[in-house]
Amino acid sequence: MTAPAPATGTTRVAVVGAGAIGRGWAALAAVHGWPVTILDTDAHATDAAMLEIADRVHSLVLLGRAEQAVAEAGLAQLKAGRSLLQACGDADWIIESVTEDLALKQRLFENFEGIAKPEAIISSSSSGLPMTDIGSHCRDQKRLVVAHPLNPPELIPLIEVVPGKFTSHQTVEAVCALLRALGRIPIALNREIPGNVVGRIAAAVYRECADLVLTDVVDVDQIDRAVSLGPSLGWAAAGPHLTYHLGAGDGGLGGFMQHLTKTFETLWGNLAKWDHLEPDQVRQLTTLVEKAYGNKLELIRGARDRRLATILKGLESSRRTSGQGPASTAQRE
Amino acid sequence: MTAPAPATGTTRVAVVGAGAIGRGWAALAAVHGWPVTILDTDAHATDAAMLEIADRVHSLVLLGRAEQAVAEAGLAQLKAGRSLLQACGDADWIIESVTEDLALKQRLFENFEGIAKPEAIISSSSSGLPMTDIGSHCRDQKRLVVAHPLNPPELIPLIEVVPGKFTSHQTVEAVCALLRALGRIPIALNREIPGNVVGRIAAAVYRECADLVLTDVVDVDQIDRAVSLGPSLGWAAAGPHLTYHLGAGDGGLGGFMQHLTKTFETLWGNLAKWDHLEPDQVRQLTTLVEKAYGNKLELIRGARDRRLATILKGLESSRRTSGQGPASTAQRE
Repeated sequence: MTAPAPATGTTRVAVVGAGAIGRGWAALAAVHGWPVTILDTDAHATDAAMLEIADRVHSLVLLGRAEQAVAEAGLAQLKAGRSLLQACGDADWIIESVTEDLALKQRLFENFEGIAKPEAIISSSSSGLPMTDIGSHCRDQKRLVVAHPLNPPELIPLIEVVPGKFTSHQTVEAVCALLRALGRIPIALNREIPGNVVGRIAAAVYRECADLVLTDVVDVDQIDRAVSLGPSLGWAAAGPHLTYHLGAGDGGLGGFMQHLTKTFETLWGNLAKWDHLEPDQVRQLTTLVEKAYGNKLELIRGARDRRLATILKGLESSRRTSGQGPASTAQRE
Repeated sequence: MTAPAPATGTTRVAVVGAGAIGRGWAALAAVHGWPVTILDTDAHATDAAMLEIADRVHSLVLLGRAEQAVAEAGLAQLKAGRSLLQACGDADWIIESVTEDLALKQRLFENFEGIAKPEAIISSSSSGLPMTDIGSHCRDQKRLVVAHPLNPPELIPLIEVVPGKFTSHQTVEAVCALLRALGRIPIALNREIPGNVVGRIAAAVYRECADLVLTDVVDVDQIDRAVSLGPSLGWAAAGPHLTYHLGAGDGGLGGFMQHLTKTFETLWGNLAKWDHLEPDQVRQLTTLVEKAYGNKLELIRGARDRRLATILKGLESSRRTSGQGPASTAQRE
């Protein structure tokens, strides 16, 4: 199996599941001029998705993240699917993005097998379910792979690519090529693990944040700003290991890592250990978040997207200035 | 006590401890035209610091983070201290940035008390020791406060401000005003906690990252890129709570938080639980990091600083476009 030729814009994409993630995938493929069909079991959701995808496409153009002519060509080929067969039958790439319900995903993948072209790639957007389980009812699991985006998929470049036990190396290569053609940066995991990489890190960070808010060390908006303007900025410019490597100084990494580990050992035992939040605590957090940010969500979302777009532009121009070629070498400059 | 008037450039700063953090503080104050004296118990460290501070100041000018004329004026007033009395006697703000050794910091703060002007503010750069302990040998603890920067302090805007039990409200206000005058974004914690906020989050993230590398789920450079290009980008644009608020969609935050909590509950119990790394594991991680990034540290550091500077410029221009005023409102747009 070889990757469809994405540069010619002929990769036909079917997106199954028209929630936030599915809409993002559809917008992303459309702004690259690729023909997209989107389908949801709920016809109303599909209709709402068609409107929102057009909005997202226009936003990407306004944010300078897409070329208008190409995006319009993509939008002109965007279709609402009427049935799984009609939506997926001629697709080169089927993207499943329904809710995190294993049985539902298993049924869908079983159906895909009877419908999809033999050479089609089938990916799941699952944030943590293993493809080995999702595809367990399929006869041929070689072409199945997890490709998990973050929200919003059309702006955050990272895609976690996680092969199942039976996924072929060619499928991993092919889906990575498709993702790169969409301007994404795929990171392939060596094996399946609950929550992949991002979900585990997000869970660890959120547990600390929630704990610090619930124990009144810091307010919701203050901890959000602390994470944004401190560690996240640092990590956006250099991942955790590289940050420590750069912090090591003249004494070298070996001594620094021993010192760092000692410091962290005094903290690891002291971090939040709970693995359950009481309904009361969830309500308390919900109330505090709503109080911190009010209800101007559309305004806030627009501002967030503008920040993301300008950060991405900055990173790209910094990469060009360094003469370092493609985005995938970001950490290796 | 009132804050010294920083806009006039007359805030005299004494930096005690000439390691990476002390050098960053000195460079930051110097590029704002403030007179700085830096001191270390090791005279060689002070000499090396004088050279590196000049380098950092010039870098900030080249990165577009400082005005050349102001920075040169600051550099012209940069001095190597000869004694604690000479360095700190006329300082408006004493910044302690020695290693994380409680007894050493306690002795220093005891000495500061006999030397400092009555109206001077005295801050510690401690990443996690409480000011209540650091200042426990001092008679007057009202003017003592932790102001913890990240590395490099002259580029990352966040400063964690942590009052001790006896720190006055005026001191917190005054140090925040000084920090804002230096273009920093102070976040005040409600109370002391080991590792402050950032150290706890960094410890939680690093434990997951190390665990995923040691269990061969992902390579060092891959997980660094995943953290950089995924969650960190997202959090840099909107902190964790706001990210979930924006992800909630039409169903509202309440239902979304219950759903999110359920998903996280399947992960929290599954995250790394260890609070100790064996020397072998530390060596293994050190070797893997060195293998991933080689020894071109100065090149990598320059590229990292360029990325940070362009991200900051992007965030600032995005804020101006939104007409949202000062940086401190970043999350509230």
